[in-house]
Amino acid sequence: MTPTLDESVKPTPELLYLLIGDPVELAAVLREMQPPDVAEALRELEPAAAAKVMAALPFDLAVQIFDEPELVGNRAAIISKMGDRDAADLVDAMSADQQADLFRELDPAARNRLLSALTRETREALRLLLQYEPETAGGIMTTEFVGVPSDWTAEQTLAHVRQVGGRKETVYAIYVTDPATRSLMHVVSLRELVMADPAAPVGTVGASRRVLSVGPHMDREEVARVISKYNLLAVPVVDEANHLLGIVTVDDVIDAIVQEETEDAQKFGGMAALDVPYPEIGIGAMLKKRAGWLCALFLGEMLTASAMTRFENEISTAVVLALFIPLIISSGGNSGSQATSLIIRAIALQEVTVKDWWRVAMRELPTSAALGAILGTIGVIRILAWQALGWYDYGNHPALLALTVGVALLGVVTFGSIVGSMLPFVLKRLGFDPASASAPFVATLVDVTGIVIYFSVAAIFLRGTLL
Amino acid sequence: MTPTLDESVKPTPELLYLLIGDPVELAAVLREMQPPDVAEALRELEPAAAAKVMAALPFDLAVQIFDEPELVGNRAAIISKMGDRDAADLVDAMSADQQADLFRELDPAARNRLLSALTRETREALRLLLQYEPETAGGIMTTEFVGVPSDWTAEQTLAHVRQVGGRKETVYAIYVTDPATRSLMHVVSLRELVMADPAAPVGTVGASRRVLSVGPHMDREEVARVISKYNLLAVPVVDEANHLLGIVTVDDVIDAIVQEETEDAQKFGGMAALDVPYPEIGIGAMLKKRAGWLCALFLGEMLTASAMTRFENEISTAVVLALFIPLIISSGGNSGSQATSLIIRAIALQEVTVKDWWRVAMRELPTSAALGAILGTIGVIRILAWQALGWYDYGNHPALLALTVGVALLGVVTFGSIVGSMLPFVLKRLGFDPASASAPFVATLVDVTGIVIYFSVAAIFLRGTLL
Repeated sequence: MTPTLDESVKPTPELLYLLIGDPVELAAVLREMQPPDVAEALRELEPAAAAKVMAALPFDLAVQIFDEPELVGNRAAIISKMGDRDAADLVDAMSADQQADLFRELDPAARNRLLSALTRETREALRLLLQYEPETAGGIMTTEFVGVPSDWTAEQTLAHVRQVGGRKETVYAIYVTDPATRSLMHVVSLRELVMADPAAPVGTVGASRRVLSVGPHMDREEVARVISKYNLLAVPVVDEANHLLGIVTVDDVIDAIVQEETEDAQKFGGMAALDVPYPEIGIGAMLKKRAGWLCALFLGEMLTASAMTRFENEISTAVVLALFIPLIISSGGNSGSQATSLIIRAIALQEVTVKDWWRVAMRELPTSAALGAILGTIGVIRILAWQALGWYDYGNHPALLALTVGVALLGVVTFGSIVGSMLPFVLKRLGFDPASASAPFVATLVDVTGIVIYFSVAAIFLRGTLL
Repeated sequence: MTPTLDESVKPTPELLYLLIGDPVELAAVLREMQPPDVAEALRELEPAAAAKVMAALPFDLAVQIFDEPELVGNRAAIISKMGDRDAADLVDAMSADQQADLFRELDPAARNRLLSALTRETREALRLLLQYEPETAGGIMTTEFVGVPSDWTAEQTLAHVRQVGGRKETVYAIYVTDPATRSLMHVVSLRELVMADPAAPVGTVGASRRVLSVGPHMDREEVARVISKYNLLAVPVVDEANHLLGIVTVDDVIDAIVQEETEDAQKFGGMAALDVPYPEIGIGAMLKKRAGWLCALFLGEMLTASAMTRFENEISTAVVLALFIPLIISSGGNSGSQATSLIIRAIALQEVTVKDWWRVAMRELPTSAALGAILGTIGVIRILAWQALGWYDYGNHPALLALTVGVALLGVVTFGSIVGSMLPFVLKRLGFDPASASAPFVATLVDVTGIVIYFSVAAIFLRGTLL
């Protein structure tokens, strides 16, 4: 009923390997399968075995499978186990954006060897695509699109579409250019083309709205937002002269969104983005991604020891004060973590921009003061209850101690929220990624100040009694 | 050059309001604009003013604008300011999935009044769609699709597509059903149809792979994964008898992915998902979303005070021990936060499942032990350096104190990573959302145990000297 959940129609790596010796049977088995499932099975084989499977497949199917983003990270190794001619034929037939991704994975020697065996068209497409950063519109676009001059008729255009056929993802929008300047004028959907009067010039077919396009250096997150907001199947990428360079399709954008979210989630956890699936990264590589931030946070957190040193006398005079330090500083970190996650996400969704910082601060202030008051009240009740029930003896001034803890909580929670909500703006303003404002980063900032706030409040309320 | 970034082609709320009195001019201005931009401007107007703009627009444009997800949250209020007849006409013309979303926003009285004014077709589509949870395939599908029996020819089918025309997003896949049982047999893309022999039965056109479909109760995240993995423009939703109920299109799935990511990010920050854009939520509503988890974490964190109480004697004997408490427990929280964010994301991307817990633990153990050793070494150096430089006097046994702090860091960081990486699995196993394993949640768990680990290590190394 729901074949996507039906494991029986997915090939296993073992099956692929078994059938290498029988190309006819292998092709028959795989004809029923989805290329992404085959790609998934292939990535679990050793590169040499995967190369043998690729060689045993009908060429068209091999190309389709190699075009799957599921194989990213494995393709370079598989290519290296294939003959140069076979590899070049395969790469020539891949879609341009996947060719570029593959080239980014290859080491320089393998790049050069492969490059010399490719056709001139492939080399030119690669030269164009590889000049852009991988996380920009130019870096994820493909150069396969259907472009026609505006003086063609709808019928001519449809005949052209039938002829070039091409990959499914690229024919749903036909890009119409000015015959003289070759600049992009108009976009016609395949639906509009099918429904149009065959004799009509293609430049007049369909809606007359201005064409939406993006520049090649636009960040892929921004491209994703354009495609998503305007419900496009693809968006054209144009240069300054409005000449069409390529198109970014909706399926590439979904992959980009998911990757960006993964990066953001990992950064928010307080580490560098892994850039590789968790089960596949080596322990050494993972250590590198995690140790940097962890050490930086540790060095920052050392300031807590320095802050505590300043209050050593207070602690030895009233050891009872030390008992609540973890409770108080962690509450500040928690409220800061909430505020940071809210604001990072609101910035990512463009719900707020840097210029809204004041408006955000004015919302966080009453919210966090209320949250601080709630926690402060619970804290006061906790101390007075333990004292009243005789579960613990806080000495001669339990009420003053409770007051100190309550007011400190109010201050620390409020301060935590403000720091947590403002930090992403500060980072963005300084040109950093606001998603670097991780929960541990905020907690570290708040821990140090939390200690100072707590002992300052204690100095006010407990001077002459406990202190 | 890049009109999407060109604010001049976007309407402002003020402009819309000004032009209400001049429908001809308003229509002329808006013809050049993109409906999502108009929707965005509209949501900044008061509902009564927005209703006036809607009334002044040509009907087709009004429908397009009302179909935009940008207006979600505002449509119910705008509808309430329109006449019943106008509202019903507008809603009848909307796409079915947006009708369902609108109905979910309406209060019961408004629902019933509107329902009685709608056509029978609309009522039936609504009855079907509203029976599904909003975050399932059935909840985000639309009932507008092109379905034909398999014995039609390609030419007949293409003529049918031309006739129904329909909304752009729904005609790129044509669903072919068995004429007898009406169950889904085959999917043909518009591209394949255009390129096919006109006389061929539509059931034989295009690739012969098994049709991918999903059940109506599948979670929308899972639907997104299917569409993204198999590069689909839409996926059919079928019942147990394989009858077509509707389709989920790629643009709905992008919205779903972005919403799910937002929910996960907010949960990871240690709060309930807002479900509303940050700038639009009231402070009362936001307090509710944040106070629950913050109080729960606070109650958990109170255990630190209890743990500290157990070690009060140690603290008063060696106050110097207290200085390093925040440093040590926060390091455990930080390493736990890293591990949790990694594993939550790996589970969300299906890179790991619950049965992989042991494999993950065996990767986290050496990684976190190495991280703990690095931090422990820095900690030891810090204490010995301060002592050697005369910046602070740690008493008679600085080396023993440094050893205590170093070993405690090793233990706490390792423990933090293990707790952080296992917690999402535990939550998932217990039927909770693994994304609830927030950074503050992990930090709280680790803080309490971190104190116990630290003082236990101290008891071993400092017994007879400092203690």
